[in-house]
Amino acid sequence: MNRLISDSVPRRRSLTQISDLSDKEVLELVERAETYRQMEEDTRRFSDVLKDFVVATLFFEGSTRTRLSFTLAAERLGARVIDLGVSMSSVSKGESLKDTCDTVSALGADAVVVRHPNEGAPLQIASWTNLAVVNAGDGCHEHPTQALGDLFSLSSAFGGVKNLSAKRVAIVGDILHSRVARSLCSLLGRFGVSVVLVGPPDMMVDRPSALGAEFSYDLDEVVGEVDVLYLLRIQRERIRGGYNSSIESYTKRFQLDQKRYQKMPSTSIVMHPGPVNRGVELAVKVAEERSLIAEQVRNGVLMRMAVFSKILDTAWIGGQPQKGAFHG
Amino acid sequence: MNRLISDSVPRRRSLTQISDLSDKEVLELVERAETYRQMEEDTRRFSDVLKDFVVATLFFEGSTRTRLSFTLAAERLGARVIDLGVSMSSVSKGESLKDTCDTVSALGADAVVVRHPNEGAPLQIASWTNLAVVNAGDGCHEHPTQALGDLFSLSSAFGGVKNLSAKRVAIVGDILHSRVARSLCSLLGRFGVSVVLVGPPDMMVDRPSALGAEFSYDLDEVVGEVDVLYLLRIQRERIRGGYNSSIESYTKRFQLDQKRYQKMPSTSIVMHPGPVNRGVELAVKVAEERSLIAEQVRNGVLMRMAVFSKILDTAWIGGQPQKGAFHG
Amino acid sequence: MNRLISDSVPRRRSLTQISDLSDKEVLELVERAETYRQMEEDTRRFSDVLKDFVVATLFFEGSTRTRLSFTLAAERLGARVIDLGVSMSSVSKGESLKDTCDTVSALGADAVVVRHPNEGAPLQIASWTNLAVVNAGDGCHEHPTQALGDLFSLSSAFGGVKNLSAKRVAIVGDILHSRVARSLCSLLGRFGVSVVLVGPPDMMVDRPSALGAEFSYDLDEVVGEVDVLYLLRIQRERIRGGYNSSIESYTKRFQLDQKRYQKMPSTSIVMHPGPVNRGVELAVKVAEERSLIAEQVRNGVLMRMAVFSKILDTAWIGGQPQKGAFHG
Repeated sequence: MNRLISDSVPRRRSLTQISDLSDKEVLELVERAETYRQMEEDTRRFSDVLKDFVVATLFFEGSTRTRLSFTLAAERLGARVIDLGVSMSSVSKGESLKDTCDTVSALGADAVVVRHPNEGAPLQIASWTNLAVVNAGDGCHEHPTQALGDLFSLSSAFGGVKNLSAKRVAIVGDILHSRVARSLCSLLGRFGVSVVLVGPPDMMVDRPSALGAEFSYDLDEVVGEVDVLYLLRIQRERIRGGYNSSIESYTKRFQLDQKRYQKMPSTSIVMHPGPVNRGVELAVKVAEERSLIAEQVRNGVLMRMAVFSKILDTAWIGGQPQKGAFHG
Repeated sequence: MNRLISDSVPRRRSLTQISDLSDKEVLELVERAETYRQMEEDTRRFSDVLKDFVVATLFFEGSTRTRLSFTLAAERLGARVIDLGVSMSSVSKGESLKDTCDTVSALGADAVVVRHPNEGAPLQIASWTNLAVVNAGDGCHEHPTQALGDLFSLSSAFGGVKNLSAKRVAIVGDILHSRVARSLCSLLGRFGVSVVLVGPPDMMVDRPSALGAEFSYDLDEVVGEVDVLYLLRIQRERIRGGYNSSIESYTKRFQLDQKRYQKMPSTSIVMHPGPVNRGVELAVKVAEERSLIAEQVRNGVLMRMAVFSKILDTAWIGGQPQKGAFHG
Repeated sequence: MNRLISDSVPRRRSLTQISDLSDKEVLELVERAETYRQMEEDTRRFSDVLKDFVVATLFFEGSTRTRLSFTLAAERLGARVIDLGVSMSSVSKGESLKDTCDTVSALGADAVVVRHPNEGAPLQIASWTNLAVVNAGDGCHEHPTQALGDLFSLSSAFGGVKNLSAKRVAIVGDILHSRVARSLCSLLGRFGVSVVLVGPPDMMVDRPSALGAEFSYDLDEVVGEVDVLYLLRIQRERIRGGYNSSIESYTKRFQLDQKRYQKMPSTSIVMHPGPVNRGVELAVKVAEERSLIAEQVRNGVLMRMAVFSKILDTAWIGGQPQKGAFHG
């Protein structure tokens, strides 16, 4: 199902996975996010390019921070945001979900931000409706705006996307269940980043090479040679009964503690998609100096502004913003 | 308790039941909703005639889609909307409900949209406060904005309210518990529509004629001669233990399935207040071509804009909009 | 930890307790709230001095009405408000709470309104972040904006703060657990008001004099000589097992019923922070004529507007509004 649209037709498009975007479009999004950062720092003014647009959030899994990031991004561009909440999200059958989306569209929404436990649900919804659909995480599949925001953070930290070539990023944790890891691998590989996946065997994907990545079961082996250590959130309930029969054994082998932190190169940085589970994947009060974690949150909003702008603003749809159409 | 106000005094008025409105006012509302549709199609712009107004939603029964319809309608006119949510709705005693309404008014609200399981609750609230009260469904009594929106949909489908005269509308389902059916009967009868209520005996009102309607226990007898088939939502929990001891028996007799659909006149249409319970009152994938269901949702927002405009906009209060006061 | 800032540096400041404010600043806030009232009555227009600001509400204890009061106050000044809701409030450890606040700040919030069961939590948060923190009630400690709004109500009722000197205010109820009582004592004492705390021994603070107040266990002894009777909300669950083994015995001794109401001076007034527990601290239908309760709600919004304006509006930070900077 090809979500790309012809250059000449100003139709809505969706963002359900990283492969929906060309390299050129990714670079445009990073550039646009950077423009928003400048606007914010210079004038503190929000834009209203999406005035009279309505964005709906439809989260079948709770995540206040991700939902708020999308909400604030859309509102900063002047859009109204409605949260469909639990009751409209509580539909279970495919047909009902389609009816729900038809209703959301008929209520006047232009875009819907979807988080769903099932892989492919946002793509399915995009095939049913005229709404622009943004995937806010679908099962163990993808979380594209997180990866895009992180690319933006990396670009800012290293002086541009072009400087990311040959940088080494270790992603640490439950790789098997991580949609963030999947989207990151898909995105970073395109720009020459070398990714190594780190975690215990029962949390590792079967074929890391299919994600274009190396892998390791030993964080200590990797930690001294990274430019970026990207920690994933470890969910206590998931770890029980796995290879590591206890949080303690995971923590001992994969936590970024003070000792491992000191082995990292002095120019390296620490990232995490949040919320941080202090005392598990990251020790308390470690990584304060080289952490990009708060920046990732800030940049996530700016990148989501870029994404909404790209898929909803007619000045952007179909490619580059037209002359005079940019709303700076 | 007469909610009508004198023409000369610009006081707030409420909409608690269809009989609150004169025929002339109903036609004004349809016309206003049509104007909003034109504005939307032409310019995509929202109005701000209710800028600085605050509308509160107070739902003692959950309904995200109805609440959002009111919310988007008020916001499109520039109003702020606050949802009083569960905790302020969890009052149980009459005296406390009055205190709650006094608080809502003191917080600065101008109108309150109320859904309540008890018949007459919105009217009671309207007698206590200066707030404009809009009934969003009270028990088995009325749901006036749904009926008004549906009248607007019918008017659009048949080329004007005047063309509805002598049209035949069958309302099918649990008539006994349906506030939508009551408001529709009250409204459609005024404009010459012939209404027939269809459902099993235990779901039928005692005196259909008191609602100005005919009745039938047999959908097959009716389906070939309708201009409109209006299906009601069947609640699975309600049907148990009733005349029809199972969903299966209800479905067999009253579901709009492919066979019944083909017996409908080719110019007839299908309506439903939503959300559709697919596989019960309506078979999966039936009625796609002649369905007004999505239009009803869209028109519901436009009609609620007209209602808010009528009861809150000083240019409208007391009768016709004044010259030059219209906010198009 | 001194939250006051130098006059020359336009940094954010917080309001965690009454002692954060100088007498002069309190009077400024009352004057500002009065200005907002005039603006509202004259023109019904909201201000937009806080356009592009974001205020977050973080309530670890539910209170829809207080949250809405803050929300409407911020929105009337043009700010956006995001509610962090239950899930982000469900953090339990201090470190996580700090991470939550860092996230809220990174998402773009400028201020956070905090209600927390632990005394001192808002002050702790203020020490961690750059966010302006407003205490919306912390345990049994303080609820400063309630007290400031009440001072404004009293000032309006008696013709100015200067006229409050030597007025006698009785605060009645569960003094021991009341943050409202603490903030009121701290505030009213500064302006010459004589406060007497009234309640059963097991609901009385150990040292009323430390709050600058007298005390009494007998409402009947006090009620004839007050200018203001300030009733506190009695929580049924708290009263069980205490000195008064039943609601009945509390009600008998401390409820404002018709008889006690008639013993009050004819010029005296009745106040309550809401929501009123009818039939417990206040009899049904008593005090209608001399009640300031609805006014307190209205004035609470206006005072919170003044507070937001003071701590966020650069024209106000560092002291008096600058010439020409006032946003009327």
